[in-house]
Amino acid sequence: MSQHPKILSTEDLDTSDAKWVSLKKINWQDQKGRKRVWEAADRRTRGNSGIDAVAVLALIRSKTHAFPISTVIIEQYRPPIGKFIVELPAGLIDDGETPEQAAIRELREETGYEAEGVLDSSAVMANDPGMSTSNMKLVVLDVPLNEAMESPDQNLEDGEAIVRRAIEVRNLSKELKEYEKKDYIVDARLSHFAAGFELAERLRTSDIAP
Amino acid sequence: MSQHPKILSTEDLDTSDAKWVSLKKINWQDQKGRKRVWEAADRRTRGNSGIDAVAVLALIRSKTHAFPISTVIIEQYRPPIGKFIVELPAGLIDDGETPEQAAIRELREETGYEAEGVLDSSAVMANDPGMSTSNMKLVVLDVPLNEAMESPDQNLEDGEAIVRRAIEVRNLSKELKEYEKKDYIVDARLSHFAAGFELAERLRTSDIAP
Repeated sequence: MSQHPKILSTEDLDTSDAKWVSLKKINWQDQKGRKRVWEAADRRTRGNSGIDAVAVLALIRSKTHAFPISTVIIEQYRPPIGKFIVELPAGLIDDGETPEQAAIRELREETGYEAEGVLDSSAVMANDPGMSTSNMKLVVLDVPLNEAMESPDQNLEDGEAIVRRAIEVRNLSKELKEYEKKDYIVDARLSHFAAGFELAERLRTSDIAP
Repeated sequence: MSQHPKILSTEDLDTSDAKWVSLKKINWQDQKGRKRVWEAADRRTRGNSGIDAVAVLALIRSKTHAFPISTVIIEQYRPPIGKFIVELPAGLIDDGETPEQAAIRELREETGYEAEGVLDSSAVMANDPGMSTSNMKLVVLDVPLNEAMESPDQNLEDGEAIVRRAIEVRNLSKELKEYEKKDYIVDARLSHFAAGFELAERLRTSDIAP
């Protein structure tokens, strides 16, 4: 019964009618003391943590070395782009929740994988600081599996249609390029992560000078 | 005569009064055929290319191996965040310009470095696809220097206050952590790039299991 999602129409939305986002006019003073104006988009959902969202880099490993270190990515249709996007598991931080708790929860809901520990929790990052107040943390979670790769059940909410896929970390860049050939769009943060990984590999093998 | 920039006040802005951004209400149909609504921020500046912006990963190398492969990052105050942000050189694509031309121009303007070639130009990526239509390309540029590291003059516009800094690629992650200690915020894409680079290094030295 599944069909391809699609955009039906798009219209201007006033800030006073918007539930999830708003536009802000920021009056600021620059380094020369001049008064200036900047326009930005802002999420209405930010809670006590002061951070909008988390993304999860799950490091899935086999206790018996049955498979190479892997991670999990998700595919979902994103109306702002009008295409399927490949992303790290991610989500907004609920009020009263720490970023790390949000990361463990989002990983469980979107992918089914259970984290057993937090390996790293980044500083707050700005998603698109020229146009948006949106910020996030990247949380690296430890997902040890007893032996072989597992495909646990997801815990999706009604209306969520998310495909999850485990990928060997070493193949991430190559797999993202395959998605791009199939008209998927890759999230910029995941794409930059893969580009950084690939550059390290290329520098090591000296395959860098043109 | 330089002073610390600051936010004076912030107010709601209606889409009809905004010059650079707007809010959109997207009417869409999901995979089960249900009609749904999504809210998103949208840049008003997108031109013929269909892409809002480029970021530049400059690979600065010495023809005489006088220094290790380096890149250049920029620091600038970003009113939407209200702090100094560390980013890759980046900018909006002008109408009639290719993404690669924009990358070479932005690198020249913001950092003074002259690229001699395009090493890679990514597919289009989505910056924050849950809340924004904003998209970009990452362009990798070749910046060969005759010998030692150079510090060419920037070509900034009036009102632009951008500090540029060349950093050895291998030290990027460490340097970004130093910025965070000093209350700078790192752009999420640059931070993910550094995290990917660092993970590749850690996997190579097996410093990964907890």
